[in-house]
Amino acid sequence: MVYGALDIGGTKIAGALIDAEGRVVVRVQRPTPARESAQAMMAVVTAVVNELAACPEWGALSCLGIGSAGPVDTFAGTVSPVNIPAWRSFPLVEQVRSHPAVPDGVEPVLVGDAVAMAAAEHWIGAAKGAANALCMVVSTGVGGGLILGGSVHSGTTGNAGHIGHITVDQNGPVCPCGARGCVERYASGTAIAAHALESGWTPPAGLPATAREVESSARAGDARALAAFDRAGRALAAAIAATAALVELDLVVVGGGVSQAGDVLFGPLRHHLKSFAVLDFTRDLPVVPAGLALDAGLIGAAAAGVAASGLYRAGAGATGPMTT
Amino acid sequence: MVYGALDIGGTKIAGALIDAEGRVVVRVQRPTPARESAQAMMAVVTAVVNELAACPEWGALSCLGIGSAGPVDTFAGTVSPVNIPAWRSFPLVEQVRSHPAVPDGVEPVLVGDAVAMAAAEHWIGAAKGAANALCMVVSTGVGGGLILGGSVHSGTTGNAGHIGHITVDQNGPVCPCGARGCVERYASGTAIAAHALESGWTPPAGLPATAREVESSARAGDARALAAFDRAGRALAAAIAATAALVELDLVVVGGGVSQAGDVLFGPLRHHLKSFAVLDFTRDLPVVPAGLALDAGLIGAAAAGVAASGLYRAGAGATGPMTT
Repeated sequence: MVYGALDIGGTKIAGALIDAEGRVVVRVQRPTPARESAQAMMAVVTAVVNELAACPEWGALSCLGIGSAGPVDTFAGTVSPVNIPAWRSFPLVEQVRSHPAVPDGVEPVLVGDAVAMAAAEHWIGAAKGAANALCMVVSTGVGGGLILGGSVHSGTTGNAGHIGHITVDQNGPVCPCGARGCVERYASGTAIAAHALESGWTPPAGLPATAREVESSARAGDARALAAFDRAGRALAAAIAATAALVELDLVVVGGGVSQAGDVLFGPLRHHLKSFAVLDFTRDLPVVPAGLALDAGLIGAAAAGVAASGLYRAGAGATGPMTT
Repeated sequence: MVYGALDIGGTKIAGALIDAEGRVVVRVQRPTPARESAQAMMAVVTAVVNELAACPEWGALSCLGIGSAGPVDTFAGTVSPVNIPAWRSFPLVEQVRSHPAVPDGVEPVLVGDAVAMAAAEHWIGAAKGAANALCMVVSTGVGGGLILGGSVHSGTTGNAGHIGHITVDQNGPVCPCGARGCVERYASGTAIAAHALESGWTPPAGLPATAREVESSARAGDARALAAFDRAGRALAAAIAATAALVELDLVVVGGGVSQAGDVLFGPLRHHLKSFAVLDFTRDLPVVPAGLALDAGLIGAAAAGVAASGLYRAGAGATGPMTT
């Protein structure tokens, strides 16, 4: 038995066949023609499925999960990825289902990419065994997914856990989403670099003004760089505390490119969390780095496919797809 | 078959027997000796149970729910109500279970009062039939409870939905809880009255400075009174939008004393929600007044008892306890 997975991003379209322990058995990848037509985009997805279907393991396919950059609408089976303009309410599930190589009994299952990451961390990563966890991606943007009662809580349309766009400062700057003071305006890699630049920080000669370079400066003791990460960590802390108050959490997992900054991010985040998570049931909430990196999207898409296909282990002790 | 319910508050301790349609069949109530000893408090609870147990309907008791002012720890079965100083980690569940009139097969079930209110609204109130709803109490404080996937999501310790203490302004005033810019600092009745007073509003001669009087002034067009409700509505809107982004909601129900202000509160709340709930899956979220008033705590405690006793209707279409 293998689980199929597709991961649709603004940069690449990946596919994989994954075994019952979450190991990637086959992996294929193509660049995303993000500026081309809806048909050209779909042709690449089809090519990725063709490549997977040509593998002997495809014969044992038991489910097929699709993780996609959002917004997604898992109820309608459509995707509208911000960075893929030609796809607006694009019926991806229907299109993949109609691929001749997809077996009749296999219903493609769509999830948002951050929810997929949470499913992967819960299956074989840092949230394994957690009953109630928030898994975050802090990268160019900020996203997240929730594990509640031992299962992925994806919400009616698959967008639950959208922590990047909750307000931590109702009087803060207007966000491109239209609201004010969203977490992403403080904690994304883009926001960290922008804030550092505004405060007078400059990247080393010849290097780009990225969060990675801000991190290097922070490690060298640059106060403006440290302040940019402190600001990011504080906004994340306020949002994590809010999430814990709303749903009760046992664990927070933070992944994504910016989380690679390690203590430069986790230090201020944990420090400020002490000030925001102060209720009896939110205090001392552990915040840990993600356990998976590159293939979390694929592994999570597979996990979501398994869950929706009824192969997921039911009940309070659930920790992921069945392994038998 | 009747459901038993106890409701422990800072002012009164109530008990009821409730039928399968959520109707209160028997209701008893005593004042809370909130400043007395733990034993004196428990003696009143015992007296309330005695009174219920003396009713002929008690013989048909199938479950017993207890709603209590928080914080509660439903995992440990203990309560530590802010306004009842003698009860700190008080083992209320164990104490009620050991009451001689409580039948052996009936395991008392504890929930926080705001979670109980949500359970009641979901059973027979304004959230009936909703799969995913936030039910709020806006009163002296601000509390809430969540319905997710057709069931009450109470969290590991029974405190989930604690929307009064999520941060909507990370640079805002320090809250008694220790965090900053909590919703309760803007939207509770106390906060509304305090803000109006600070801005120069005064209550009519001889009347107390309460949110009720601020509401009267707002209806008469007083700009300072209107501003206090606008500030409350804005904080509630930011917090509701955050909740919708995190878990996906179909409906928000607002009850509690301050919600009796009607359009004076709901008007600004709905207006500001348009600015904060702007994602595809959070936009146009309906916010409606609670359907139940006085006995919501008792009805909700009963509903929680039913749910925990396995009498709750399972599955996605669940709308409350079984009626057969």
